[in-house]
Amino acid sequence: MHFTSEQLLDDNVLERSFTLGEIPGILWTPASASPSAPVPLILLGHPPLGLRRMYPRLVDRARRSAADGFATATIELPGSGERPSWPAADRARADLRRVMEAGEPVGDDIVDALILPLVDRAVPEWQAALDALLALPGIGGPVGYSGGVISVGVRLAVVEPRLSAAVLFAGSFVPRAMFDEARRVTIPLHVLLQWDDEGNDRQAALDLFDAFGSAEKSLNAHMGGHTGVPQHAGDAAARFLARHLR
Amino acid sequence: MHFTSEQLLDDNVLERSFTLGEIPGILWTPASASPSAPVPLILLGHPPLGLRRMYPRLVDRARRSAADGFATATIELPGSGERPSWPAADRARADLRRVMEAGEPVGDDIVDALILPLVDRAVPEWQAALDALLALPGIGGPVGYSGGVISVGVRLAVVEPRLSAAVLFAGSFVPRAMFDEARRVTIPLHVLLQWDDEGNDRQAALDLFDAFGSAEKSLNAHMGGHTGVPQHAGDAAARFLARHLR
Repeated sequence: MHFTSEQLLDDNVLERSFTLGEIPGILWTPASASPSAPVPLILLGHPPLGLRRMYPRLVDRARRSAADGFATATIELPGSGERPSWPAADRARADLRRVMEAGEPVGDDIVDALILPLVDRAVPEWQAALDALLALPGIGGPVGYSGGVISVGVRLAVVEPRLSAAVLFAGSFVPRAMFDEARRVTIPLHVLLQWDDEGNDRQAALDLFDAFGSAEKSLNAHMGGHTGVPQHAGDAAARFLARHLR
Repeated sequence: MHFTSEQLLDDNVLERSFTLGEIPGILWTPASASPSAPVPLILLGHPPLGLRRMYPRLVDRARRSAADGFATATIELPGSGERPSWPAADRARADLRRVMEAGEPVGDDIVDALILPLVDRAVPEWQAALDALLALPGIGGPVGYSGGVISVGVRLAVVEPRLSAAVLFAGSFVPRAMFDEARRVTIPLHVLLQWDDEGNDRQAALDLFDAFGSAEKSLNAHMGGHTGVPQHAGDAAARFLARHLR
């Protein structure tokens, strides 16, 4: 992990860009973080639209988390932003667009091609980032994960024992294979669902929530479309993480 | 409305029992309430198990609301507690028990007989209580409703223009007729659902949530049975009311 730039944001949050091998990422730490007082860490998931485009929303979440005393970090997803293009992923997205524009049902093959390779590639990268981040002075545990492509969060919750709690956003297609993985998730979950998310299959989201094996899980559904998560819902998700990571 | 007893609880909450005609009730007011600084009011709904049995849970909710600066009040439901028995309601409950113990599906006729007469009788009583409560010095608006038999809350939200927001607990049978009423509800709603509530029809609860006409509504589902609403879910419901009644 190499830091490539740093700036102090106005509310005393240190923002550092880094690269992990070829993968760009950003780390935010509150002023309170120090080697003698390491802070918990939240991994900020996001959709595959590129870190640059997602930056305004990510830095908002980072500032709020810093105010709660947490470090946050994110990395670019494979095939997104300034990472090398990924023709198979581009094709899968083009197939999805074609089907949706034609008003046809989105078949399992399209969902699988869209999501499963992304999960397979992204999750080990998040784990490598976690290795590097937890080795930094001032960053300790526990570790939470929040947001992004829900199947990435599900896989990470299954394979990564350092994860203590996760906020998942039920807003993307879910391959059938992920339902079996969901049953193996046992950490506390706070699941967000936008009730009127046009591009999302509400029943699949409810089924996935039902499948999670966690003894503590909550479904938090709000009105509005994909990007309309209300402020108070973000506050509630932050409180969930504070409850489990402090 | 006649006050029949009063006591000051240890956290400076004044608890007054009253009767409204034949109906017993309880009013809790925070020390901050005064004629020159009237406080908002929350009507505390509850299941038809009698106020005496429900008292521990009700006083918990009243104390928390008082800490938020709210008065709370509740009245006994028809046929419950020390009110005159209501043979038709008793028969409906016995019918329900018989069907459930036999493992048979609960038909619409049983649900209608159980819920609709209760709604028809209880809602005008809550409205009469509201008239009397808002006439008291130190109690102003806005008014919220929280908990209890969900169909009572739905009807009250439709017919009572003084209601500004409601916390509804999707934990009882819902007559089909209530779905039409739900579409006419427009106030902000915070709906609680216990995901594993044995005696509750989860799909009906989801359908009812979907039917509500409110532009602001959220579904908050947690693990556990009917009485297992977690503390943090109660906190979130209290925050919802604080957001809308302050």
